Amino acid sequence: MTAPKTSWVASANDGKTHFPLQNLPYGIFSAAGGTPRAGVAIGDQVLDLSVLDDAGLLPAAARGTFAGASLNRFIALGKPVWSETRARLTALLSSDDQTLAGNAALRDKALVPMASAKMHLPVDIPGYTDFYSSREHATNVGRMFRDPANALLPNWLEIPIGYNGRASSVVVSGTPLRRPNGQIKLPDQPRPVFSPCRKLDYELEMAFIVGKPSMLGEPVSTADAPSHMFGMVILNDWSARDIQQWEYVPLGPFNSKGFGTSISPWIVTMEALEPFRSDNPEQSPEPLDYLRQPARNAYDIALEVALQPAGAPAATTVCRTNFKAMYWTMAQQLAHHTVSGCNVRVGDLMGSGTISGTTPDSFGSLLETTRNGAEPVTLADGTTRGFLEDGDSVVMTGWCQGEGYRVGFGQVEGKILPAKR
Amino acid sequence: MTAPKTSWVASANDGKTHFPLQNLPYGIFSAAGGTPRAGVAIGDQVLDLSVLDDAGLLPAAARGTFAGASLNRFIALGKPVWSETRARLTALLSSDDQTLAGNAALRDKALVPMASAKMHLPVDIPGYTDFYSSREHATNVGRMFRDPANALLPNWLEIPIGYNGRASSVVVSGTPLRRPNGQIKLPDQPRPVFSPCRKLDYELEMAFIVGKPSMLGEPVSTADAPSHMFGMVILNDWSARDIQQWEYVPLGPFNSKGFGTSISPWIVTMEALEPFRSDNPEQSPEPLDYLRQPARNAYDIALEVALQPAGAPAATTVCRTNFKAMYWTMAQQLAHHTVSGCNVRVGDLMGSGTISGTTPDSFGSLLETTRNGAEPVTLADGTTRGFLEDGDSVVMTGWCQGEGYRVGFGQVEGKILPAKR
Repeated sequence: MTAPKTSWVASANDGKTHFPLQNLPYGIFSAAGGTPRAGVAIGDQVLDLSVLDDAGLLPAAARGTFAGASLNRFIALGKPVWSETRARLTALLSSDDQTLAGNAALRDKALVPMASAKMHLPVDIPGYTDFYSSREHATNVGRMFRDPANALLPNWLEIPIGYNGRASSVVVSGTPLRRPNGQIKLPDQPRPVFSPCRKLDYELEMAFIVGKPSMLGEPVSTADAPSHMFGMVILNDWSARDIQQWEYVPLGPFNSKGFGTSISPWIVTMEALEPFRSDNPEQSPEPLDYLRQPARNAYDIALEVALQPAGAPAATTVCRTNFKAMYWTMAQQLAHHTVSGCNVRVGDLMGSGTISGTTPDSFGSLLETTRNGAEPVTLADGTTRGFLEDGDSVVMTGWCQGEGYRVGFGQVEGKILPAKR
Repeated sequence: MTAPKTSWVASANDGKTHFPLQNLPYGIFSAAGGTPRAGVAIGDQVLDLSVLDDAGLLPAAARGTFAGASLNRFIALGKPVWSETRARLTALLSSDDQTLAGNAALRDKALVPMASAKMHLPVDIPGYTDFYSSREHATNVGRMFRDPANALLPNWLEIPIGYNGRASSVVVSGTPLRRPNGQIKLPDQPRPVFSPCRKLDYELEMAFIVGKPSMLGEPVSTADAPSHMFGMVILNDWSARDIQQWEYVPLGPFNSKGFGTSISPWIVTMEALEPFRSDNPEQSPEPLDYLRQPARNAYDIALEVALQPAGAPAATTVCRTNFKAMYWTMAQQLAHHTVSGCNVRVGDLMGSGTISGTTPDSFGSLLETTRNGAEPVTLADGTTRGFLEDGDSVVMTGWCQGEGYRVGFGQVEGKILPAKR
């Protein structure tokens, strides 16, 4: 094992941080009354890209794209500019480079402690699509919502099933969400009641962000799909199970999902994730031609979900799983999405679907972990949860384990506020 | 009957035009190599609002919002500015006003013949939601896709069912669309085939465009809903029935709809539609409290669909119906959409769902008109259609009939190109 390259930002080198020199994820932050602008996470610091850009230290091709409140303009410049910028940032932050390290005035202006930075949505999201690509999750849900004997629907092994989500209510980590009100059909009553959701749940997902658009009428092949991806985030697809069960036939989930979706603030680039590609899942039957793909389109990303009640001293981990277990890959999702001719745009958010492993401690939603509330989980403070209660915080985190370093996603956190009366 | 007010633009006064002085719909157009900008339709002319704005003839509050490629900035100014601008335009175009009529140089610069204007999407659409609010359509589809004995699902009479559509592929009238490829499950084969759609259909819909945003977590009541609407368009929700039937369980239509949705280019304002409000449909059971509404939220809008094969000398009308027959109103749709806390944004497009009447000649899709292709319609050129063929053009039109004038929507037209090979 060779020691990983290090940064002169000391906190980037402890082997545990999510943000070593090998990561360099992009986000939008503000600090000290300043306007939102682009930054890169390095150790426990945020590097202000607009400051570096003003100082002429970033690629000329990216000039002027870091001062705004979203990354879309930078992302739209395309892969050569992403690579050049990443290479430049890697050099500027390396232990052996003095350009920035040796310029105290500029360094002090450019580095902001992460603890004092406020994070914003990293991109304007023109479209949000959510897939359903974990076989275990689809089977678990099918068992509870539909027919236990035929839990996996006939189309599931042929289609990377997806649906359109609501982009307007995608929020950044740290944004609290109200428990939704809605129609719920109780088994003992002939008509639905209007009530705060009684089965509020999270869904652990990853998502990729589109970096290269496609044209209407022009499908993207599985081979080309990776070149359309800019990076990834963790996504919590909050779900109101009781509202969902009553509303979802025949056009899919709507109010049960549209009240809010949370994403982690740092976009980890596909370039940083490249060393963590892993073998594609076995697929049987072999997919139709347009879904066949080159090898190693899966990614090895360890994931955890923790729950922390209001006032509890600590969070309790309720799920440990891995993104590589997904049946359909992101390349297959994008190829399927566009095969009809549907176009995608820079900033589009593509959720993976809930990521569940094979055992209850690896299930990505409370619906599955607690079997629809029938087998509650016990938290560290001694309380139990079938579904989420008001005041609960849900914290999701994920990372790729390198040799002596981690390429991490930080976390996506959200707290449940009481329903509006 | 009093004679309607007239315009000095003579073509606006013939009683048949869709664009008399009483309408004044907004669109985005370009002409003679110019950039796209805002215009208003009057008779057979387009009035260039950026020219009037430069001349200082439009309200100061709207200054500078008409020169861009979308109406979003103007719409975001809010209802008082919409009303003031409409009043100003009504005055400027009235027979008894000489401000513009008497200024030949300005008039020639500001008026562009509609025949030489190219129309663009009128708004940037941050979100597209499609409802399913015709009882007859839901019943017809349920009969064919699901259980003929229980065609209307139990939730349908309680919920204005809706789902998220794909905003990226919404196109303006006149944009041709490729027949989509996709997965189709044939009854005699164990696995799906990949094939061009064999059951390509249109869906006749209206849509409203959100003019006033709402906040995440803050529902919009049925009473307030109309104040959030800027105006309406006709919408063709192109649908691939064979792809839809195989993919739609359990998360709803995706590739069967996402390949394209067409809208008419002129947004007819709610203010212009005000005289055509009509009684709400009877609803039984009485909806839950949050869906109860003030009277007269329906609109009397006559609608037609015509089909024209490639090379045919004329189109054949295959559907005549009326928007007032919808079971759920737009106010109920918006109240339901937001009751969970989901926010809406300026420019959001809210489709009504297919508008079908009670008889086959009033059904808003070929699926219904031809009973899933079993009873083809005969066109004027002697050919028949179960579903759409390559080269077919679909033309939808609609208007409100006033006393001596029509407030019309123009048309939404789209032609089917062969599938990509």
